[in-house]
Parts: sequence; structure tokens; C-alpha cells
Amino acid sequence: MRIGILTGGGDCPGLNAVIRAVVRKGVDTYTHQVFGFRGGWLGVLNAETEQLTTEKTRGILHRGGTILGTSRTDPMSEPDGVERIKECLDIHRLDGIIVCGGNGTLSAASDLHYKHGVPIIGVPKTIDNDIAATDYTFGFLTAVQVATEAIDRLHSTAESHSRVMVVEVMGRNAGWIAVYAGLAGGADEILIPEKPFDIEEVCKHLRHRYGTGKTFSIVVVAEGAVPVEGTLDVPSYPKDPFGRDRLGGIGNIVAMEIEKRIGLEVRVTILGHVQRGGTPIPADRVLASRFGTMAIDLAHRGEWGTMTALRSSRIEAVPLREAVAEPKLVDDELYEVASVFFG
Amino acid sequence: MRIGILTGGGDCPGLNAVIRAVVRKGVDTYTHQVFGFRGGWLGVLNAETEQLTTEKTRGILHRGGTILGTSRTDPMSEPDGVERIKECLDIHRLDGIIVCGGNGTLSAASDLHYKHGVPIIGVPKTIDNDIAATDYTFGFLTAVQVATEAIDRLHSTAESHSRVMVVEVMGRNAGWIAVYAGLAGGADEILIPEKPFDIEEVCKHLRHRYGTGKTFSIVVVAEGAVPVEGTLDVPSYPKDPFGRDRLGGIGNIVAMEIEKRIGLEVRVTILGHVQRGGTPIPADRVLASRFGTMAIDLAHRGEWGTMTALRSSRIEAVPLREAVAEPKLVDDELYEVASVFFG
Amino acid sequence: MRIGILTGGGDCPGLNAVIRAVVRKGVDTYTHQVFGFRGGWLGVLNAETEQLTTEKTRGILHRGGTILGTSRTDPMSEPDGVERIKECLDIHRLDGIIVCGGNGTLSAASDLHYKHGVPIIGVPKTIDNDIAATDYTFGFLTAVQVATEAIDRLHSTAESHSRVMVVEVMGRNAGWIAVYAGLAGGADEILIPEKPFDIEEVCKHLRHRYGTGKTFSIVVVAEGAVPVEGTLDVPSYPKDPFGRDRLGGIGNIVAMEIEKRIGLEVRVTILGHVQRGGTPIPADRVLASRFGTMAIDLAHRGEWGTMTALRSSRIEAVPLREAVAEPKLVDDELYEVASVFFG
Amino acid sequence: MRIGILTGGGDCPGLNAVIRAVVRKGVDTYTHQVFGFRGGWLGVLNAETEQLTTEKTRGILHRGGTILGTSRTDPMSEPDGVERIKECLDIHRLDGIIVCGGNGTLSAASDLHYKHGVPIIGVPKTIDNDIAATDYTFGFLTAVQVATEAIDRLHSTAESHSRVMVVEVMGRNAGWIAVYAGLAGGADEILIPEKPFDIEEVCKHLRHRYGTGKTFSIVVVAEGAVPVEGTLDVPSYPKDPFGRDRLGGIGNIVAMEIEKRIGLEVRVTILGHVQRGGTPIPADRVLASRFGTMAIDLAHRGEWGTMTALRSSRIEAVPLREAVAEPKLVDDELYEVASVFFG
Repeated sequence: MRIGILTGGGDCPGLNAVIRAVVRKGVDTYTHQVFGFRGGWLGVLNAETEQLTTEKTRGILHRGGTILGTSRTDPMSEPDGVERIKECLDIHRLDGIIVCGGNGTLSAASDLHYKHGVPIIGVPKTIDNDIAATDYTFGFLTAVQVATEAIDRLHSTAESHSRVMVVEVMGRNAGWIAVYAGLAGGADEILIPEKPFDIEEVCKHLRHRYGTGKTFSIVVVAEGAVPVEGTLDVPSYPKDPFGRDRLGGIGNIVAMEIEKRIGLEVRVTILGHVQRGGTPIPADRVLASRFGTMAIDLAHRGEWGTMTALRSSRIEAVPLREAVAEPKLVDDELYEVASVFFG
Repeated sequence: MRIGILTGGGDCPGLNAVIRAVVRKGVDTYTHQVFGFRGGWLGVLNAETEQLTTEKTRGILHRGGTILGTSRTDPMSEPDGVERIKECLDIHRLDGIIVCGGNGTLSAASDLHYKHGVPIIGVPKTIDNDIAATDYTFGFLTAVQVATEAIDRLHSTAESHSRVMVVEVMGRNAGWIAVYAGLAGGADEILIPEKPFDIEEVCKHLRHRYGTGKTFSIVVVAEGAVPVEGTLDVPSYPKDPFGRDRLGGIGNIVAMEIEKRIGLEVRVTILGHVQRGGTPIPADRVLASRFGTMAIDLAHRGEWGTMTALRSSRIEAVPLREAVAEPKLVDDELYEVASVFFG
Repeated sequence: MRIGILTGGGDCPGLNAVIRAVVRKGVDTYTHQVFGFRGGWLGVLNAETEQLTTEKTRGILHRGGTILGTSRTDPMSEPDGVERIKECLDIHRLDGIIVCGGNGTLSAASDLHYKHGVPIIGVPKTIDNDIAATDYTFGFLTAVQVATEAIDRLHSTAESHSRVMVVEVMGRNAGWIAVYAGLAGGADEILIPEKPFDIEEVCKHLRHRYGTGKTFSIVVVAEGAVPVEGTLDVPSYPKDPFGRDRLGGIGNIVAMEIEKRIGLEVRVTILGHVQRGGTPIPADRVLASRFGTMAIDLAHRGEWGTMTALRSSRIEAVPLREAVAEPKLVDDELYEVASVFFG
Repeated sequence: MRIGILTGGGDCPGLNAVIRAVVRKGVDTYTHQVFGFRGGWLGVLNAETEQLTTEKTRGILHRGGTILGTSRTDPMSEPDGVERIKECLDIHRLDGIIVCGGNGTLSAASDLHYKHGVPIIGVPKTIDNDIAATDYTFGFLTAVQVATEAIDRLHSTAESHSRVMVVEVMGRNAGWIAVYAGLAGGADEILIPEKPFDIEEVCKHLRHRYGTGKTFSIVVVAEGAVPVEGTLDVPSYPKDPFGRDRLGGIGNIVAMEIEKRIGLEVRVTILGHVQRGGTPIPADRVLASRFGTMAIDLAHRGEWGTMTALRSSRIEAVPLREAVAEPKLVDDELYEVASVFFG
């Protein structure tokens, strides 16, 4: 067999472990040929590929990023995207493609498969952990590790200076990183997209803390956290001198509101891309390796239209359709556990 | 309510997070009183306890070990153990006890509950990850992290010197740490209790690697790994000068056999207690905090005879009986994934 | 003897190691009494102190921050500051004070000693490493470690997305952290206060990199980096909606200019207080412990008006006057070494 | 110019940073040609070399080990070693060689230079930090970091179980790693080659600790620590079944003696090669990069017979002769600081 592989969307620690697993099992065990596309769907649209060998995937298990590069190119928004993809498979005589991606990339993959008959195996990939169908995605716990280490460090400096520390972490649609890192880092408040916040409630809580002798607070904010409408004093946020929105950041806004309302010194840390780069933690290397070997097994058996998923402690195949049905949000049980420690 | 808590068996990163969660939710949310026993069952036998407060559990979330101390005391092997435990509950007017422990401690707990009516909630705790009923135990991924970091470091030195590196990791009855750390660290061979090894097969494999140009190998050995009977040249292992068995260690034995059989330089690293000490990784702090809050919820609702368990991404209560039925061993699917990379 | 100790200015990993060393050697070896002031000079002005014991300093060696708290209070700017300090020494019958601080705190200490006869021992403390008289200050290498780990992580994500990554690190007057972390992290450009930058030169260099096939760049910017006058397109930076300067940040400005001039995607990471918090690396714990024991030795011998300093591999006493003469800037040799790798 | 480079002796984190610096400055700045020898002096004796390019040294800054490999081959002990080395320089028309090595490798280098006129620049390299002439060697602080992290982890488990933990660290002739890691990790006893130990004194001290309520102790032992003659109960240590000395290890011996004498549970951790492998910490990457650029500067200027050295915060050239005169031992001041905390 001849099988393609691509990595799309934002990069994520563990992608290289998937690629390595696909190649090692595909080439060494099954004697298939594996071809990589550079830059996600862009590589497929351009029909440019390179054969991947065991040699090329040596020493990449612990490396962040993706040796194939990635892009946010959406093949379905190109006028002749579907044709070009089919053509590419034809030209390179590929039996199918393994697609590693988040909700966006997998939605395209799902359409391509169900509507256009393209043989695809999906591998879920997002540090945000918001893909339904699987208990966890690789990269997520690595992001949590980076964010928690930052919160751990902020604790001692917050304490020494009697400050409020606001930490903005990734999570545009779901607050998984915020809740995990906040719970693990002993945060005093966690703001997530799933639960619109009333800034005055937040301030009341912080005032209560100071009233009972605590001299500092850690507030973790997911980048996608939203205020209850009409509750912020900052009506809208200024553009940068070139008209861009760079400055925004809900973290900065929350910080300003707190500073204005309770008059304490507030400092903001915006971790940004540090959370998605670098060495995956071992748990993510294991999960990614398991996903990769399962993906090539599925391709080998011709079970197209499926996605690899972690269910309890087993790796299973689920229909690609199911995987992209709806994003997985933080459930109430978990948020409540985290809020026990806000006191 | 008045609720006791103890930590028994080997210590494990995350125990303090459990204690903190039980106290925070027990005292702050439910206004119960929580009492800690020092040194596991020993503290109960001695009926010595101290009241735990929010203040006493502040700042312990990220600390390894257990502020309550632990011991391997088995109350069932004491002639009047059951009576003394009941007496202790009486004296301190406790409604029940939350018991954090591994297979040993929980077996005692199970007997105490089912046979003698002691009201107990179990919290599974072992870095070995060998408790059935739960997908994972906290402490496990921390041990994997420590072991994998060591393997990562050994890679570069092994490569520079053309050596075989043998790494002995924890895991007396189950090879979870070995398989996870070996898979995550790119090990070339993993020996675990579940799969008795033939040293000659191991050496054949290593010779093959050298024959194909690889200049070094990493062999991960669980401390409980066992040879196929009669396959080792070392018939028995020497005692130390005081007649103790300290020197043994299957890691040393494997190293000697390899050195003798294929004549390469072999170095051994025995990580030992470093694997069970120190700061729990964030994933373990989260799991332990969730177990702790669930445990006090169960006690609050009077659901004695249950154990907290992770099932998929939810925390559930399972019968204590079920939990200790049989140890959870490494399944074949996972070991096969790991062996894909032995090539 | 009765000796006071305070920590002033920004907090810094290693301060607790100094306090612990002063107390352990002061109390256990010399049987002196040691008293801590809370909140830097503020505590002295308020004449509030607490006796420090071996017990109180147990377990703090590896903890960031300072158990004494700190503040930026400058006693010399208070109308009766000097009198209140002398009075405080009188009231508590102190033989002298050990003052841990950066350039600001030590300048006040120097004036108090030379002009007003207050018996003081200085301990240099700044993550910025800009105190003359000593080879290094503790906290510096910890900040470098945090910053470098972030840069290491950004490398892989930058590579996967063909982006320019701008990392703003601490260093208001001196670029030590930027140069060390940039050199250690393989930065392609490092901007520091000592060397005003021409943004067009920076862009020319980045364009050259892309012209020779490199697909990403890492630009490290010290927070105190300054442009050559008149070279930026952004004339001034917008205030936040409450009229504060929060948004600024030379990192953001550099990013905007690069994005505008060469049209590549640029991402900014502002590490902020993460750099000054958390566990000191071992090298800093050692240096801080050596400074602390030397400080109490000097107090014991009555050598007031001195500061502890690292010279080569020895700890020496230097006149306090010398220490605050001039800030230590990045020397050309070091910057040139870093620039070898900008290619 | 045509310049050779080799790495000899045990590998050491930072070697790749040296190689990268030599190549980047040598090739890009000076347009010299740089040639690498594989396996230390062995490569020179075999006259096998490969040209090193900027491309070949990309991405190796943070990688442990050495891309050139290493060996303990001593050219002076080969009958015609000197001739073959001269011949090799002739064949490959090399102007001289940059030699990265410890005391052994540099001694050979020194003889080759002074007695036989071979043009050599030395770069000191040892995790043991025992080369005179330089304040520090790269790799040392990385080893200290690894050892300290292990001790930090052992603290919590020791405390939970009331145990004595013995940690054997590297350091055959000098106790630098033991003293630094012991001081940074809060060790209660540190045994080093420079100070022969009386085991009964050690036990007296540990008993005293227990007498004053401490429930655990950490004993750090350098692998080269030696007992005062006649003070051990273990007369000699058993060989392994194949007659080798593997089992020994002063760490095991110290553990046995303590266990026998004071009857407490003792556990041993032998870190081994983990200390010399893996990513160098940023401070070591900086030092190694500075040594590398200085080495090629010296070669460029024809200053053969010198070695790069850190003096205070500057890199200087010292006569090779001076460097190998005598090993640098732990000085009393430092050991005394460490012993303040043994209490």
C-alpha cells in the first residue's frame, strides 16, 4: 500500500511521535510506503510529497512541532479543492491519507470522506482537548504542564509582593487548559469560555480573600473567556497603531478591571505559543505513539472514515463523523472540583 | 460528621493533594471535621489522631510525600487489629475513614469493611498503576516522567560512547512504568513481569541492532521482570557481606548477562526512590484532587464501601471489593505498540 | 549579638536561601539572635520585627520569593527615614542589619552606612545581574533558565509555522538575561539596552535569513531595549482605556514593526514575572547560601559597610561603596559571541 | 586555515555547543575549514576525518553528548602514537587541532604540544569541575542540576517513611558535584574524596539528628569518597559472579554500614550516567559557546599551546601546561558552608 500523511492546523507536541509511529509500523512491519505532505492540506493541493523512511523519522519522538510543517489551509474553501485532492491521490497512487488535525482540519476530512469518497483516517490533535469522541488529545497535558509550571513560579513572587497575578492561557472555545492548570496550580479563580464571568463577582471574591488575610491571588483566564454582557467598564479595546487587535487579550482586560475596582497591584502573564511548543511530556508521547500505530493499522485494514480515540485506557476506532459532531466542553463536575479551592 | 483519613503503603506523589481536597471540601463546604492518622494503619491502631484544618493543608498541593506519613503496617495481621480499629473510631467518634492506599492497604480496608463493618471509603494510590477498577492512579505519570527524563538523558551519552544502557525502573508486579517510560523514551527493549524474558533473545536482538549499524541500545527493565527459567548464566546472586540481598536487582543481572554474552560495554542506572518522590506532575495533582473531593462527597453521602475511580474522563464510585479483586497488568495491545519501536 | 535582616526591591529566587543561611550559621554556630523585618525597609521604618529561628527557616531553601516579603520603600525619601531606622535599631538593640537588595536598596544602604553610621552588611540580589563588584548575582541564572526553556519551546512551533517569534525578557538597564538566554536558546537576533537597535537593520537581517532558506526566526528583546532615535514607524504607543501604559512593551512594538516591514507572521511572548518566581536552580541556591553565610560571618566580625561578592570561585567582602558605584553592563566580548550565531 | 577538532574522555553536556561555535565562527566568520575526528584521539590515529559545515552543526546546541563521538584512547600509550598524529596532520594539511577533554585528554595534548610540537588549543571539559586554571567547566552545573533534582525528590519520600537516603553522585577525584548538589539539596551529610570519612562519626551525627526529632536524613556520597583506613566493618566488597567489581560502589557500602550501625532503614540511589547525559542547562550552553568561539579565535591567531578558561566573568587563554598541572579540589571554605547545614 501507499499511504499519505499530513498534519494540519496549529502545531501540537506529539505530532512527530504520530508520524514516527505511522512510518515505523507502516514501513517496518507492514512494508507499506508512507508519503508526507508538507504544510497540511496545502501540500496535498500542490500534490507535492516526499517518501518518509525510518531514517527520516529517527530522533524525532521527543521533538515538538511537526517535521512536515503545517498550515491552516482549508481545502473545502478552494474552488476546485476536492478535485485537486483526488488528483493528488491519483498522481501518487495513494490508497488513502492519514490526517492529523483539530476540529477544523478533521471537519474538512470528514466532508472529503463522506461526501467525496476520499479514503481518510483521522488522528485527533489539539492542545485544547476539545474533540468529543476521545477522552484526551495528545499535546493537552504538555500545555497544562507548561502553564502549571508558570503558575507555580508566579505563586512565590505574588506572595512576596502582595499582588494579583493574572495568567492568560490558551483555549479559545473550551477551558480545559485553564481548569487543569488552575486546579493543578492552586488558582484562586478560573475564567473559561463555558462560564461567562461577572467581573464584579470576581472582584467581590478577591476582596473577600484579602478581608480574610490572604495577601495575594492567582487568576487564570482562558483566552476565550467572555464577560457577561454589559458587566465590563472597558467598553471596547483600543487597536494598535496599525489598526490591528494585537493588544486585546482578555487577560489584559481582566487585569485592568481588577486594578481599577479593587486598587491592588495586578500583573499579567501571557504565555502564548510557549504552551504549544517544545518537548511533549511522556504521557503525550505515549498517546501519540498509540494513535499513530492505530492509524496505520486502520489504513492497513482499509477501515477508512474512522478516527483514533482514547476510551478509558484503550485506543479505539470511532467514525470520523462522530468525532467532529460537537466540541467537547469542560464539564460541570470538573469545574466544581476546581472551584472548591477558590476559597 | 467526623471523618478520619490515612495514607498507607509506599508514598506516592499526589497524596497531599488528596488530603488537601478532603479537608478543603470537608471543612469549608460541608463543615465536617477531618482527622488525620499518622503512619497509615499504625496511627489508627494507636488511636492517635490530629484535627486537620484548611490552614494545615495550605501550600501542600505540589509537595510530594504525605504530611501524614505512612507505614506498611497491616492491621489484619495484628491479633486484635480489628478491635483496636473499631475502638479508635469509637474513641474519636468518627463516622468513617478515608483510606488512601495500594493493593495491600486497600485489601485490608476491604476486609475491614465487608467482614467487620468498618465504614471506609478507598482512594487508590500507587505509582505502579496496577489497581484494576480505575483507568489510572495518580503518581504513576509522575514516576513515568522521572523515568523518561532519565532515559532521555542516557540516550545522548549512550550514543557518544557506543554503549548499552540498562535502566531499572519500579514495578514489582506490573510493568506499567517500564512500558510507558520505555515507549516515551524510545527504548530498544523493555522487560516486564508480565512477559518472562529469554536473555538470549534479548542479546540476539541487540546483536542485530549492531549488525545494522546502530551503535547503542537502551534496555528498560522493570524491577519485577523475570527470566524464563533456566535461561540465565548467573545461577544465583551473591549476598552482601551482611547477608542481605541488596546487591541483586534484575537490572544488574541483565547487564552482566549482556556484557558477558555480547561483549559490549554496559552501564546500569537504578533510579530507585527518585521515582516516587517529589512534586507530582499537574495531571497527577488534578487526578488526586478529583479523587479527594469525590472521597469526601462519598463519605458525606454515607456511601461507605466504595472506592474512587477514573473511568474515561469521569470520576466514579466503584465497590471497594471490585477494586482489589485482581491487579491490573499491562495489556498486550500496549506492549505491542511499544515493541514496534524495538527495531 | 542581635542582628536584623531584610529583603528589599523585586523578589528574586534565592532570597530564602540567604535568610536560611544567616539564621543557621548565626543562631546554631554563633548563638547570635537574628530578627527579620517584613516588607523591606518598610519593616524597619515601622520598627516591627520577628525573631527568626532554625525552625522557621526549615524547608525554604528551594522556595522562591522571600518569607520576609519585600517592598520598594526607599527610607532615604522619607522625611525622617534615617532617624526612624536608627530608632528601630535602638529599640530592638540590634548590632546591625544585613540588607539583601539590588542597586536601589543597596544605594540606600550605602548612604545609611557612610553618611549616617548605620552598621550594615549588603548582599547583592537581582535577577538582572547588573551589580558591579560581583561576578554574578543569584537569581540571574534561574531567570535565564526560565527564559531559555521558553525559547527552546518556541523553536519547534516557530519552525512548524514559518513564523517570527519575539520573546520579551526582563532587563531594564542591562541585557544580561537577554544575551544569556538568547545565546543559550539559539536566538537569531538579540536586542539589549546597551546597544540601541535600528529596526531596519533587524529586518534586513531577517530578510537575509529568509533569502537563504531559513523559514523562521527567534528575536529576543530585553524589556529595556531602545531603538535608535527616529527609526521606528510607531511614533508613540497608545495608552490603555484607563490612561495607563500597560500595553506598551518594546516586545509588542518590535513585533509590529517587523510584521509591517517584512510581512511575515509575528508572535510575541512576554514572560514577565514567571522569570523572577519559583524554585532557584541549584547554582543559585549555592551562591545564595554562600552569600548568606559570608554575610553573617562579616556581621560576627563587625565588618560593617561591606558587601558579599563572588570573585572567580571565591566569596569575598567588598566595600559597599564600590558595589553601587555603577551598574554592570553586558560587555562587548559576550555580545559578540552571541552575535556569531545570528547568521 | 584548516583546523581539526576532537572530543575525548567521558562525554559531557555542552560538547556540541563547543563544536557548533568552532564551526560557526571558523567557517562563517573566518572562512576557515574545520574537520572533525570521530572517537577522540582514535580518529586522529586512524587519520579519518570529515569536514564540518554550518549545516551539520545546526540544531545541536541543546543536545547532550557529542556528534563526534568520544573514546578514552590515549595516543601517548600507543608505540607510534606521536608519529601517527603528526602524519594525520600532514595528510589532511591541518594547521592545528582543537582538543576538548578532561585531565587525561589534556595531559596528552600538553605532551604532544610541548614535547612534540603539535599545534594544539585545549578546551577544558569535565562534569567533575576538577581542572585548575578555569573557574568552572561546562557540564558541571548540568550534572549538579540532575543530582539536585534527584535529592529534592528524595526529600519528600524520605520524610514520609523516616528513612536514611544515600545518594551516590559522580566525582572520582574531586567532590564538586557532591558538595554543590548536597548544599543545593539540603543534604545532612556530604562525603567527598578530599575528606576521608569516619563512618562512626557519620553515624553519631545521624543518631544525634534522630535524637533531636528529625525523622530522616539525606547522605550524599561522591563515588570517589574514601573511608579513614580501618574504620569500616565491611573489609572488602564481594565481586559479581563473573569476577567483576560492578557491585561495589561506596554508596552501597556506606548504606550497609549505616543500616548495620544504627538500625534504620536505608535506601540507596545511584544516579550514574544520567548525570552526564542530556540537555545542558543554559549556563553550560553559554560557557561552552564562549569556549568554542575563543578556541577558534586562538587557532586563528596561531596561539597554539593555550587553553580556554573562565576567569571571573571573562574568557581567557592560559598556557596548556598550567591547566593540567594539578587537579582542582574542593576548597575548605565551600565545604564549611555546606557543613553549616548538616545540623
